[in-house]
Amino acid sequence: MATAERLVIVGGDAAGMAAASQARRLKKPEELAITAFERSHFTSYSACGIPYWVGGQVDGPDALVARTAKEHRARDIDLRMRTEVTELDLDRGRVRSRELDDGGRETWTGFDKLVLATGATPKRPPLPGIDAPGVHGVQTLDDGQALLDTLEKSAGRRAVVVGAGYIGVEMAEALIHRGYEVTVLEQADQPMSTLDPDMGALVHEAMCRMGIETVLGATVTGVLTDEEGRARAVTTEDGEYPADVVVLGLGVRPETTLAEAAGLPLGESGGLLTDLAMRVRGHETVWAGGDCVEVLDLVSGRTRHIALGTHANKHGQVIGANVAGGYATFPGVVGTAVSKVCDLEIARTGLLESQAHAAGLRFVTVTVEATSRAGYYPGTRPMTVKMLAERRTGRLLGVQIVGREGAGKRVDIAAVALTAGMTVERMTALDLGYAPPFSPVWDPVLVAARKATGAVRAAGG
Amino acid sequence: MATAERLVIVGGDAAGMAAASQARRLKKPEELAITAFERSHFTSYSACGIPYWVGGQVDGPDALVARTAKEHRARDIDLRMRTEVTELDLDRGRVRSRELDDGGRETWTGFDKLVLATGATPKRPPLPGIDAPGVHGVQTLDDGQALLDTLEKSAGRRAVVVGAGYIGVEMAEALIHRGYEVTVLEQADQPMSTLDPDMGALVHEAMCRMGIETVLGATVTGVLTDEEGRARAVTTEDGEYPADVVVLGLGVRPETTLAEAAGLPLGESGGLLTDLAMRVRGHETVWAGGDCVEVLDLVSGRTRHIALGTHANKHGQVIGANVAGGYATFPGVVGTAVSKVCDLEIARTGLLESQAHAAGLRFVTVTVEATSRAGYYPGTRPMTVKMLAERRTGRLLGVQIVGREGAGKRVDIAAVALTAGMTVERMTALDLGYAPPFSPVWDPVLVAARKATGAVRAAGG
Repeated sequence: MATAERLVIVGGDAAGMAAASQARRLKKPEELAITAFERSHFTSYSACGIPYWVGGQVDGPDALVARTAKEHRARDIDLRMRTEVTELDLDRGRVRSRELDDGGRETWTGFDKLVLATGATPKRPPLPGIDAPGVHGVQTLDDGQALLDTLEKSAGRRAVVVGAGYIGVEMAEALIHRGYEVTVLEQADQPMSTLDPDMGALVHEAMCRMGIETVLGATVTGVLTDEEGRARAVTTEDGEYPADVVVLGLGVRPETTLAEAAGLPLGESGGLLTDLAMRVRGHETVWAGGDCVEVLDLVSGRTRHIALGTHANKHGQVIGANVAGGYATFPGVVGTAVSKVCDLEIARTGLLESQAHAAGLRFVTVTVEATSRAGYYPGTRPMTVKMLAERRTGRLLGVQIVGREGAGKRVDIAAVALTAGMTVERMTALDLGYAPPFSPVWDPVLVAARKATGAVRAAGG
Repeated sequence: MATAERLVIVGGDAAGMAAASQARRLKKPEELAITAFERSHFTSYSACGIPYWVGGQVDGPDALVARTAKEHRARDIDLRMRTEVTELDLDRGRVRSRELDDGGRETWTGFDKLVLATGATPKRPPLPGIDAPGVHGVQTLDDGQALLDTLEKSAGRRAVVVGAGYIGVEMAEALIHRGYEVTVLEQADQPMSTLDPDMGALVHEAMCRMGIETVLGATVTGVLTDEEGRARAVTTEDGEYPADVVVLGLGVRPETTLAEAAGLPLGESGGLLTDLAMRVRGHETVWAGGDCVEVLDLVSGRTRHIALGTHANKHGQVIGANVAGGYATFPGVVGTAVSKVCDLEIARTGLLESQAHAAGLRFVTVTVEATSRAGYYPGTRPMTVKMLAERRTGRLLGVQIVGREGAGKRVDIAAVALTAGMTVERMTALDLGYAPPFSPVWDPVLVAARKATGAVRAAGG
């Protein structure tokens, strides 16, 4: 009998374990031996769920785990928890790992095929006091638990969130749910730099109305600590913000330290570069997926780093099929994201104005106000839709939506249209679901498409 | 100065008045004189809103009127209310009309260009008692007002709805809101013949749980009347159903009596046939749109009759541009519809199994259960998604969704994918909005697409 092929997976969250599961579905243990390394206490968890766990809307951490280590092992996956891979030796086809809880024992494990799913690392500027107790990132379930421990122990009720991107605004909501007074410090002139400034301004206004103090143009200079060394305030160039707890929501960068040391190809953001089958470029036996890779942006034609669980799961699925000798590809993304802060829904897909410029595109923009349901139907809510379309061709380039209930997921209409390379004029005739409780006669996205069609014509060549 | 061109529009609801408004936007009164005839008391109204008006969730009838006769006249549209066009004389370029309230005075009006927007007529089988007081269609605002008058006067609280299609189930909900005991009589074996039987069965179960008595396989034979001639019961081949009010929800047929008499081309359903610019086939100066035409179904490649306000508005927009010398087309539909009965959301797009067979297609079907949000997020609700995909090519052919909050509008994802001719495999990688309050990591539509991809592969050629 032939020896089983050896698959080694570095990272046991969404991408890594989706790859393991899919590969196991296609290959028996005697055909493919799967070993996976995870340095945290959890596998296959929803990091995106952490704000809702912290906010108390969701139980945790177990509810956030899609599949436990035990469940993976029951499917003949040799999963090594609390074990960190410390070196990739591609020449000899082996990885070195260290057990984090058992005295740091080191082992070499050989592979025929390697999957890198090392995820991302929260950005943490090297400022005085930034590593003090009471300053929390929210990337892993371990991080979430640590933050909750701090909230339990804390007597005060003042929170400072650094960064007003997706994680920042979601954590602001979570802390409000916990009864905190929340101040958000953002270096840029608007919250949500994933939106154009005019749309970000709508989010800013709404956050103010919700009682979230949002300080824009705030350059954080450090964290002040008390006598016990715990965080007590965040300082900026302009002032000092008292804090019983500090949450860092500055976004993440790809965690590719190992890959870089092994000489694997990285993009501008530091993410691994792969082909369409999620194989690391130039390396026949190495695949990579999830938050540690750059993905192809189908609208700009460039690779970008986008850390999102839904992509990580899809990557894992594709990698699992390919390492098991099947065939699947991940064609790329269009840059869709949706989020909420309290009852405000925020969504985008495609390119912002700045991104469209950078991609060398000429375009028109339009902004419309519309409603989620027929104007006369109870519970109809206003929303603002901004749309970018290419000049001359009229091709859709991007959509941003800020509104209330029923606003966010409308971005999917544009996401599919972008994927199909549709023009805004063709979009105006889209046959979308219409009934008064669900939509006005003209869906808000189509109202924007109509206006964009006119703008494209008016702009000429 | 040249004389203004004369545009005559027959029918003053969505399609007709959208055409008038768009034409007026593009041409001044001295360039284009617009005369529109409407036989009812209302213009530009939302017939789709009638169930919610009857149910008391929405004020009416004024709130359902998007633009009043007065507003249209203020924009230099010569609108003749309560005036019915009784003959089209295409050879001499004129229409005959009769005033319904003023002694029936008849007039001939000449045109250079003609728009037919005569709408649809509710189906009303020629059964004994079907025209008795207390038996109501719900097609126009006048119908809605008549039904409300009956409900006001009625002492009893028993309602029978004939037909369990969209209108039937929406009216069932409305009458429940009014405190009626509702019985729905449906000739077919399932409610919602716009769904496949297996999906219709889910609607049936849900209606039963809501306390709506739904009698399937019921062939209505007539309406019994009391001494005053008012409806008191509906009879079927199997029994008698007492009724203080009877609502007919049997669907509609295109109202093309005038067009037929004038020799204009009609399709299988009796709807007018047009080209892509909404011009009546073979007639240079006649356009038609809204509920009186057949539209091209882009998935089956055939024309079909689909009475829906959202299409009517789009037709009007296209016609208005073209009659004013501009250029626009209506490329066709994919058969999207969404509805609700109480908290049950029902949606479809593309082809049913029966329609795919009739179109000559070979296909696979899959059905999945999924949730509207991340499984752990509060308020997540289950839904069932059925998907049809073409064998060999894997092209998406249709989607049906039955679920609760968050189910219905997900059909838009599939509607856009159908429009683009996407395969189910390509759909699995769609970059849809993901965050726990909005969606699971795999959107329900993508879960179905994954399963359909497997089914296409398994089916081979």
